[in-house]
Amino acid sequence: MRPVEIFDSTLRDGAQARKIAFTVVDKLNIVRALDRFGVRYIEAGNPTSNPKDMEFFERAKGLRLERAELVAFGSTHHRSHAPETDPLCQKLLEAGTDTVAIFGKASRFQAEVILGVTAEENLRMIRDTLRFFREKGRAVFFDAEHFFDGFAADEDYAFEVLRTAKEAGASRLVLCDTNGGTFPEEMAAAVRKAAERFGDIIGVHCHDDIGCAVAGSIAAVRAGAVQVQGTFLGFGERCGNANLSAIIPSLQLKLGLSCVPPESLPELTAVARYIGEVSNVVPAPGLPYVGRGAFAHKGGMHIAAVEKCPASFEHIDPAAVGNEREMLLSEMSGRASLLRKVHGIAPWLEKESPETAKLMDMLKRLEHEGYQFESATASFELCVLGALGLFRAPYSVELFKIIGERMDSGVSRLSSALVKVRVDERTEITAAEGEGPVNALDCALRKALEVFYPAVCGIHLIDYKVRVMEPGRATAAKVRVLIETTDGAQTWTTVGVSTDIINASFQALTDSVDYKLYLMSKTENLQLGG
Amino acid sequence: MRPVEIFDSTLRDGAQARKIAFTVVDKLNIVRALDRFGVRYIEAGNPTSNPKDMEFFERAKGLRLERAELVAFGSTHHRSHAPETDPLCQKLLEAGTDTVAIFGKASRFQAEVILGVTAEENLRMIRDTLRFFREKGRAVFFDAEHFFDGFAADEDYAFEVLRTAKEAGASRLVLCDTNGGTFPEEMAAAVRKAAERFGDIIGVHCHDDIGCAVAGSIAAVRAGAVQVQGTFLGFGERCGNANLSAIIPSLQLKLGLSCVPPESLPELTAVARYIGEVSNVVPAPGLPYVGRGAFAHKGGMHIAAVEKCPASFEHIDPAAVGNEREMLLSEMSGRASLLRKVHGIAPWLEKESPETAKLMDMLKRLEHEGYQFESATASFELCVLGALGLFRAPYSVELFKIIGERMDSGVSRLSSALVKVRVDERTEITAAEGEGPVNALDCALRKALEVFYPAVCGIHLIDYKVRVMEPGRATAAKVRVLIETTDGAQTWTTVGVSTDIINASFQALTDSVDYKLYLMSKTENLQLGG
Repeated sequence: MRPVEIFDSTLRDGAQARKIAFTVVDKLNIVRALDRFGVRYIEAGNPTSNPKDMEFFERAKGLRLERAELVAFGSTHHRSHAPETDPLCQKLLEAGTDTVAIFGKASRFQAEVILGVTAEENLRMIRDTLRFFREKGRAVFFDAEHFFDGFAADEDYAFEVLRTAKEAGASRLVLCDTNGGTFPEEMAAAVRKAAERFGDIIGVHCHDDIGCAVAGSIAAVRAGAVQVQGTFLGFGERCGNANLSAIIPSLQLKLGLSCVPPESLPELTAVARYIGEVSNVVPAPGLPYVGRGAFAHKGGMHIAAVEKCPASFEHIDPAAVGNEREMLLSEMSGRASLLRKVHGIAPWLEKESPETAKLMDMLKRLEHEGYQFESATASFELCVLGALGLFRAPYSVELFKIIGERMDSGVSRLSSALVKVRVDERTEITAAEGEGPVNALDCALRKALEVFYPAVCGIHLIDYKVRVMEPGRATAAKVRVLIETTDGAQTWTTVGVSTDIINASFQALTDSVDYKLYLMSKTENLQLGG
Repeated sequence: MRPVEIFDSTLRDGAQARKIAFTVVDKLNIVRALDRFGVRYIEAGNPTSNPKDMEFFERAKGLRLERAELVAFGSTHHRSHAPETDPLCQKLLEAGTDTVAIFGKASRFQAEVILGVTAEENLRMIRDTLRFFREKGRAVFFDAEHFFDGFAADEDYAFEVLRTAKEAGASRLVLCDTNGGTFPEEMAAAVRKAAERFGDIIGVHCHDDIGCAVAGSIAAVRAGAVQVQGTFLGFGERCGNANLSAIIPSLQLKLGLSCVPPESLPELTAVARYIGEVSNVVPAPGLPYVGRGAFAHKGGMHIAAVEKCPASFEHIDPAAVGNEREMLLSEMSGRASLLRKVHGIAPWLEKESPETAKLMDMLKRLEHEGYQFESATASFELCVLGALGLFRAPYSVELFKIIGERMDSGVSRLSSALVKVRVDERTEITAAEGEGPVNALDCALRKALEVFYPAVCGIHLIDYKVRVMEPGRATAAKVRVLIETTDGAQTWTTVGVSTDIINASFQALTDSVDYKLYLMSKTENLQLGG
């Protein structure tokens, strides 16, 4: 199988999208997910333009990646400096990646009019910058910015740029459709010519301004490109970048090329949704392959036909990319995937067990209410444990109250909460202040429970996410809260859903504590009472 | 200029999308908009499967369309009837359109396995149905369902189906990629062959399951198709249909073909947004050509380049499709783009004005604190107005308190808020309950302000978004709240940032009201006091 390198730029070009604002922790999480999935290169930032990206690369030095390699991105040196004295080239070196992606103009017009240099100066800047990084031991990918427009206007110059980059040591020549307006046919023709001239070192980088970025990337690969750049969910400036979650399965399942390890492909949907969660973006239900509705059927005839033979209205088996046919959730296939998920808790369950039917009903009801267990696996386990009578939190919260107030404009720390918990016959009532009502509730709950379970003070929250689910209803809408907790050794995620953000947070908070108590009950075989 | 027929199926295939439910009035409105725009055919429903569609066709008989023609859609006759006695064929006639679209299987597998008829019976059903409608004086388009899969599996049979349909009087043979899994290259090759065999009567109907529907449609036209079927915003089952609002401008502006009258193209964006509104779907900001962000620029270098020469990062002039360039304010943007943003408020400001420096500093500080003005342009305007001393809210909130409580598990509506506002010497204190503390605060604030400004009761929130910005700090982290408000005529977005979600929401809520008061002060030159 011919290999195709997948180069993900979610953290660099994807960060150009409106509403996307990654923290350093978000970026580290996405890098880990992409690495596990088996993406070959992760372009993680531009340390020369963004101090936060520099911090990322510092912290990323501690990452142990198994499959992927980090790439730092920057431009050719500034015309007024040599690379050796250009502070931006220096910063790019300091990012400490083995590979750097350097972009330069592959269009005479862009060089002369936008950059304000002559065509020859542009070539020299490319050559000197690439040589500089090669001499410092870096592998260099050359991003030929505006290549396709440049090629259409002045083919000789565009190829002269590529030749210069190759001779200066670039190991990949990445042809960029920077403005996103090139048709796949024209793209394929140019790639074919470039691959004939320069060999198997061509990459492609598409933008979706005419809605052809996925098709263009695939056409480029068929024409000889060995690397595809894009972003996992298509995030990017303007209309977005080429959507890798659509490209990877088409290349691998339909064209028999090798992009990621075959065992990764069934994780495609989960990875896409995870990246959506971290980015706080709800992936469109109609996203190819990974959207929630990508294999949903509404038309009566279609449903009947799909029940007779799935291939009648499905271009692939959704399981191949870890997605699900929507109307068949209640069928045996739904039960099978449920059983796989609860195997660790209740290995004795079978498809026909009455408990299995009961669990299916419960999960369908909860998902309908807006719960989502893809990342909140701790809440999922607690649900299953509760439904099967295997674990129940040994305490109850009898009462809580939160109070927030503000006088005139300003004083910020005026949120407080009161919580009363019961364990058997004993109760404990206490209160705490906090940064906002949720934080106050969190502090008060822990304070009350520590009286009974000192281990609770060893856990702390590391992430808190809020998603509004029915935008039309504004502040009266349902919200989903996700909380991530750690006890130092393990990390788990819990979920709560309500129209009241306090209630939703309360559910996720109590689940977070309950899961710790469950872990203790398992490992220490502790009698927890209740 | 070679003409290409645009065939819009928003009201038929688009209605298969999840969450889409058109009323008859919605459908009439969309038909009028598509007609004005200059679409050639409007497939408006399937009267044989849907009584609402029959009602639509009754009422549509009163429409006077200038450019478009309505098409009713139905299947070949049922195997147990002749067309003359098939009640569904009868209904299709009653719809009263000059043209009908009849779908039949173009795949031997589909005919035999799904329909349960022999390959020959399938041909006969197609022939008889088409002849029936031709004899009744209808023009007939034949939708060759599953054509591309059928062609790949058994080319001879797929072509036999087309030949049968043509001989029976079909004036268009529409090749459907029903499962949406065909690459543009294979699609173009099959279209080319069909056009050579059957002449200039080939249409194409694509679905977006591999993200290639737009590219496939364009490739089919380049290979000889004379009709493109799709839906204006890409609505459709699963991953949607081919998005006509992306296809039309590419064919017309980039390939020089004629799809709609040239004077219509600058209406493209308005029509797309109108259809989105009628359908109650917010078009994705990244939609090619018509999305709100299709010509938005965020990166500092890109902004500078676009200012120098728009073609540097834009594949077409946004005005050609009625869209607008948008410069997103972010850390990277400079004084020039700030000035463009504030030009409407303070046209006298210059790059060197001391106020400009002051505004830049203020914005940088706010963005550093986590404010984001890319979408919250109303909060941005209020900030600028405040900093320049041009507007200040005529009231103050002297006090607010929110209370949330819960006893045991369950009761959901126990959030309430108390608010006291002052306008000059008068104060008003009131309270409200709500779905959670933010909703309660929203209700109480409005209730208090309505006493002074009755217009406030004419605005309502339509979106509420929460983003947690420092995940590491969990419930003590900073949150950013975005609120979208409308007064029916205009829509605006405001932002608040705080570690306390209540405070952040409060800022965005008061900005939302303040902006309404500002709009009133502008248009009515109202004295607002304060």
